Amino acid sequence: MNIILASTSTLFGGEYLEYLREELIKLYEGIDEIIFIPFARPGGISHEDYTTKARSFFETINIKVKGLHEFEDKIEALNNAKGFFTGGGNTFLLVKTLHEEDLMQILKSNIENGKPYLGCSAGSNIGGQNMKTTNDMPIVYPASFDCMGLVPFNLNPHYLDPNPDLKHNGETRETRIKEFLTQNDLKVVGLREGNWIRRIGSKITVEGSEQTRIFEKDKEPYEIEAGSEL
Amino acid sequence: MNIILASTSTLFGGEYLEYLREELIKLYEGIDEIIFIPFARPGGISHEDYTTKARSFFETINIKVKGLHEFEDKIEALNNAKGFFTGGGNTFLLVKTLHEEDLMQILKSNIENGKPYLGCSAGSNIGGQNMKTTNDMPIVYPASFDCMGLVPFNLNPHYLDPNPDLKHNGETRETRIKEFLTQNDLKVVGLREGNWIRRIGSKITVEGSEQTRIFEKDKEPYEIEAGSEL
Repeated sequence: MNIILASTSTLFGGEYLEYLREELIKLYEGIDEIIFIPFARPGGISHEDYTTKARSFFETINIKVKGLHEFEDKIEALNNAKGFFTGGGNTFLLVKTLHEEDLMQILKSNIENGKPYLGCSAGSNIGGQNMKTTNDMPIVYPASFDCMGLVPFNLNPHYLDPNPDLKHNGETRETRIKEFLTQNDLKVVGLREGNWIRRIGSKITVEGSEQTRIFEKDKEPYEIEAGSEL
Repeated sequence: MNIILASTSTLFGGEYLEYLREELIKLYEGIDEIIFIPFARPGGISHEDYTTKARSFFETINIKVKGLHEFEDKIEALNNAKGFFTGGGNTFLLVKTLHEEDLMQILKSNIENGKPYLGCSAGSNIGGQNMKTTNDMPIVYPASFDCMGLVPFNLNPHYLDPNPDLKHNGETRETRIKEFLTQNDLKVVGLREGNWIRRIGSKITVEGSEQTRIFEKDKEPYEIEAGSEL
């Protein structure tokens, strides 16, 4: 496998995908066209507008982008593709659409056969075992929470440390992930913005500018450095 | 109907349910025992410990508390009860349990027949049409997102205004609710901490110390004052 699962597409104050530019040139080496999966639709934008946004970045590294929504036969489109990028947005909407159109397993097989994959945020969540550690609002009901399982754990993108100044009684991210672990025995990688998971073959590392917080059942959460194997 | 759906059980720096004391005395007037529904299990605490927490508040207003988990026949327990309180925690866990044990409709009928109901946070979410505007993490997969529909809208408890200082790319609460409205045509009541919805008969008002933010499809969000009808 040859994949990147990134916490976010865009760093605070930065441009879309800009902080990943050098990584993406390596990820898609030798590839001149990818399929963009726009189904997470951040903020409800159209599939077409979202694809245009992705296209305008990938033009700058000489990669053409086609939106998966453009194809009548989406399964054939995935099987014929050279590589993939799934953008962020709402994970429930993304997972519902992929299950409804029977695309989750097809995408998984293509990636497992070596086609490069980039996911950001919701697009990274679907690389995990299931979507039970997404931060998103359950605005639609998917047929299942199961995802591609490209890595043997779950992700929590946009991982956010507790804010001690907040006078608010909503749960912290850490509390939420610990609640997940009361019901599930599965490692969760708390991926801060600026970080990504890199899998090349069977080697899985965490990369980026921040430490990464790991949550496991019946253990205190702990931090690992960029470059650590997962 | 005679119900309170509160944003939170506990105000910042306050004691459990303390800010609702006078309201709860009125809600449960003439009633000396209620059933507590502990299934949301905040932080994964046991049903027993959670019930003890609720009990220790209700003792101070002379109301006995039994946990629904204590009953072998939970349907009979709901039908025999004089009133209800559903505590906060994880809405997915709460809704999954209520559907699995066929309790959602039974609870709804009992409340519609006039038995008083208090919900806090997750316990308030289940008073709405569905749980698609919860803030909680989807740590388990419920058979359905449908809820009791005690009010003709959805709630977003712990409603939180955007923080302009946050250098983070996760979605704001307002963005999430607007995404819900791209997929659903249903009013959402953004209930800030300190506020609650009060239904007496067919009259539904919002009460408490804060303004309340209302979201509707194809409209700009707007604020209403405490005491306004919904």
